[in-house]
Order: sequence, then C-alpha cells, then structure tokens
Amino acid sequence: MKNFDRYTVFEQAKQWVYEAGEIIRASIDKKLTVDTKSNPNDLVTEMDKKIEKYFADEIRSTYPTHRILAEEGYGDELKGLEGIVWIIDPIDGTMNFVHQKRNFAISVAIYQEGIGEIGLIYDVMANVLYHAIRGEGAFKDAVRLQPLTQDLKLSESILLINSIWCAENSKVNEKKIQELTSLVRGTRAYGSAALEFASVAEGIIDGYLSMQLQPWDFAAGVILVNEVGGVTLHASGRPLNLLGSNPIFTGNQQIKDEIIEKYIELK
Amino acid sequence: MKNFDRYTVFEQAKQWVYEAGEIIRASIDKKLTVDTKSNPNDLVTEMDKKIEKYFADEIRSTYPTHRILAEEGYGDELKGLEGIVWIIDPIDGTMNFVHQKRNFAISVAIYQEGIGEIGLIYDVMANVLYHAIRGEGAFKDAVRLQPLTQDLKLSESILLINSIWCAENSKVNEKKIQELTSLVRGTRAYGSAALEFASVAEGIIDGYLSMQLQPWDFAAGVILVNEVGGVTLHASGRPLNLLGSNPIFTGNQQIKDEIIEKYIELK
Repeated sequence: MKNFDRYTVFEQAKQWVYEAGEIIRASIDKKLTVDTKSNPNDLVTEMDKKIEKYFADEIRSTYPTHRILAEEGYGDELKGLEGIVWIIDPIDGTMNFVHQKRNFAISVAIYQEGIGEIGLIYDVMANVLYHAIRGEGAFKDAVRLQPLTQDLKLSESILLINSIWCAENSKVNEKKIQELTSLVRGTRAYGSAALEFASVAEGIIDGYLSMQLQPWDFAAGVILVNEVGGVTLHASGRPLNLLGSNPIFTGNQQIKDEIIEKYIELK
Repeated sequence: MKNFDRYTVFEQAKQWVYEAGEIIRASIDKKLTVDTKSNPNDLVTEMDKKIEKYFADEIRSTYPTHRILAEEGYGDELKGLEGIVWIIDPIDGTMNFVHQKRNFAISVAIYQEGIGEIGLIYDVMANVLYHAIRGEGAFKDAVRLQPLTQDLKLSESILLINSIWCAENSKVNEKKIQELTSLVRGTRAYGSAALEFASVAEGIIDGYLSMQLQPWDFAAGVILVNEVGGVTLHASGRPLNLLGSNPIFTGNQQIKDEIIEKYIELK
C-alpha cells in the first residue's frame, strides 16, 4: 500500500464529493422517480444510483486497485477489508431527500486494512463539509472541531434516538430505551445517520443510538467522532462489524458505559 | 380597533424580530448563564429574558394599548384575549440554544379579539424568517409557501414526535403513540416547537404532535399552518386554548382525523 498518499486521496475525494453535491443541487427541484427497496418505507431514488455510479466510475478509473463498498449496487462484493476500501453512501437520509429536499448527506469513508483513514460527510443543501483524516483532527469546513466535553452526566445529555426504538421492534427492548428517553435532558431525531454522526462530532449532540445501521451509514461518521475523542461501538459494547448491519451507539465516552450497560438490551 | 393597520404592524414586528436576532447572534459565543425554571431540564437563559424585555419595551412604547402574553415574565397577566395581544417566545428551543447554539427561533404572533392576524417565526442562526398575515399566505423569506398536499396517506407521512411521548408520561397513552410511530413512514424531532410548526407549514413534515405546548410555543405557528391549508387542534380534537397549556396536533388535514381518533388517548 505504499501508493496510498492520504492527503492526495483526501483532496481527490473532497473534489468528487463537491462535484456530486453540485449534480444533486442542480436537479433537486426536478420530479423524482422513487423506487422502494425491501419495503415501501425504504426509499431509493434515481439520484442515489446516479451519484453512487459517479463515485464508482471515478474511483475505478483513478484508483483501479481500490475496492468499493456501497449501498446501491455499483460497489464490489466484499468478504473482507483488505487493501483500500471506499465505503460510500451517495445519499444518506433518502427519506429527507425525497420529502424535504434537504437534511441529507453524501458520506464517503476510506479504510486501509480495516482502519478508517479518511471520512467526509457533506451536508449537500447547506453546503457544509465535515471531514477528518485519522490523527489530524476533525473539521467542519475550515473550522477544527473541539474535543468532546469531559464533564457530562447522562441526565444532562441530549441524545439522538428515533421514537421507533421506543416502540415494539425486533432489535432492542423498547422499555429500556423508553427509560433512557425519560432520563436524559432531551432527545432529537434528524433522519440522516451521517448528519447525526456529524452532530455528535460537533458536540451539539452527546450521543446517538440506532439499532440498524449499515457500514455506509456510519463508516465516515466513526472517523469524525474518533477525532474529537468520542467512541462508536456495536450497541452490545463489542467492536463494530464493518461488513454488516450493526446496532450502534456513538457519542461521548462519559456516558457510553451507563447507556450500554443499563439501557440497551438487544434482542 | 380601527387603529390596527396589519401591514404597518407586521413591518414593525418584522423589524424588531430582525433586531432581536442581531442581539442574539452578536453574543451567541459568550458564556451563557443558565437558570432552571420548574425543573432542571426546563432551561432559561439570560438571553431569553433580555430578548423578551426588548420586545415588551418596544411594544409598550409604540403601541401602549396592545397587551403582551410572553414566557419569561415581562408580559401582562391576561384573563382573556380582548383587543390586540402580542404572544411572544423570545427563544423557542432554549435547550437547542444552550447546547447547539442553533436550531432555535424567535416566535411572535399578534392576535386581535382572539384571532391570529400576524405570525413570525425567525430561525435566528439560519437567518430565515417564516411569516404570515391572515388571508395573505405564508412565506419563507420572500418565497410563498405552497398549499399542503391533498393526497396523503398516514402510512406515507413523516411526523414530528419526540420519543418522550412514546415513554410512560402523564399526558397521553404512550402505547397508542408507539403504534402511530410504527405505522408512519418516519418520525423526527427537532427541539423547537416554532421551527417544527414552520416545517409543517413548509410541507417538509406532515404533522407534529406535542402533548404540552404553551401559547407562545404555538401562537405564530398556528397562523402559518392555517395559511397553507393545514390545521392545528387541541389533541382531543377541540379548539385550542390560547391562554393555557395544550396537547397539540398540527398538520395536514388528510391525516388529522385518523391520528386524533385512533392514536391520541389523553390522560
């Protein structure tokens, strides 16, 4: 992997992210064609596919040895994370994209031998790019994000928890999540995992729980949150599986143990 | 009330709202002094009080016959809504203000004989003003908001429901809210009632449920939602009480009856 210059690849990835954002913004007001994937609430648009194909084509022509893990079918079939792998969600928060025409993001992460080296989360309509290179800090555009507070009680925390996890579901004991919801200072739900990770990295949210995230939903976010001293775990407390679906906690280290030990009972 | 020229008062109110926004933005990065009101999670800052006093002073000196209903104590003690009443929340979404330094709003409504004539919701950090004069449409800055869709199923709706209403609480049967949460396409929670009303008026959210809102939380939002053909009701289906706390549904007419009849069981 001697050819992997992180800074060059980061600049290239950033350029593609901005270009993809331009493509999306240029057609945001056109009528969308919306498919449903596994169920009617799992939306996918032509735009998701178009943007993923854009990245796949660019990566394959510029970096033919790199591999791609992505949501809509233009990636490779991966059994492991050897070498350099781009993990891409072309539109994270497709429901927001369809219904709101904002509050969605492009999420791009680059892993080397399973280690997250570069993360980009681009809030397309706000034109705000969250980015990080491992060990070099996390940024919101040109502004360096501060380390997360080391003085935080769970009862004074604001968490991102969608209310679906407080209703009966197949992933987690909803009663415990309800208890957690009642205990903390407040809860929010924004509808884009990537932007929810970015909110944690920015320190405006203390933690985010979701019981079913795919690698492309969290791969970039994990890198950003790491860079400000936060942590991301499989909600059992084990390390993440980067090749499959995970229930996830990401957030401030100060509240991680209490949440995972007392309030998450996976099914 | 022959002296009430709605357009003049609207322009004056708009000017004060922008000025108040300037005051807030100018000091957003100063260290805040945070008081707690009835409980530690009910935050109020010096800024809430300062901005409310700013409005109260301006209104009293310019319109001495008008009365004021407001959150932080600078208003009048009202037993009714005779005459012209300004209903003001200086910072709606104080928790967001404290923790995020964005995603909060100034909410100003002007009622005449109990009828909402003018509504302004100002997203201070985004510098976006939602505004309406009764009968003249609702606007986001200079852009007229479109009528809400007349083709909407509950199962395809996105609702704002904070997960606290899915946990055991004193206001509503949480089991029914959980059912609703599982039925709809998605749920969100933004943490500012005024901005949540604005999202409904903009048509990017189909309905918003909250079981405990004060008049200053919803007085402006109701006017905006009316102007795009939406509806706001006490969650029992009765009309709103503008002088006290209400459980509230606001949103698209197409889903109102099903939500109120099947999913809201007040305690």
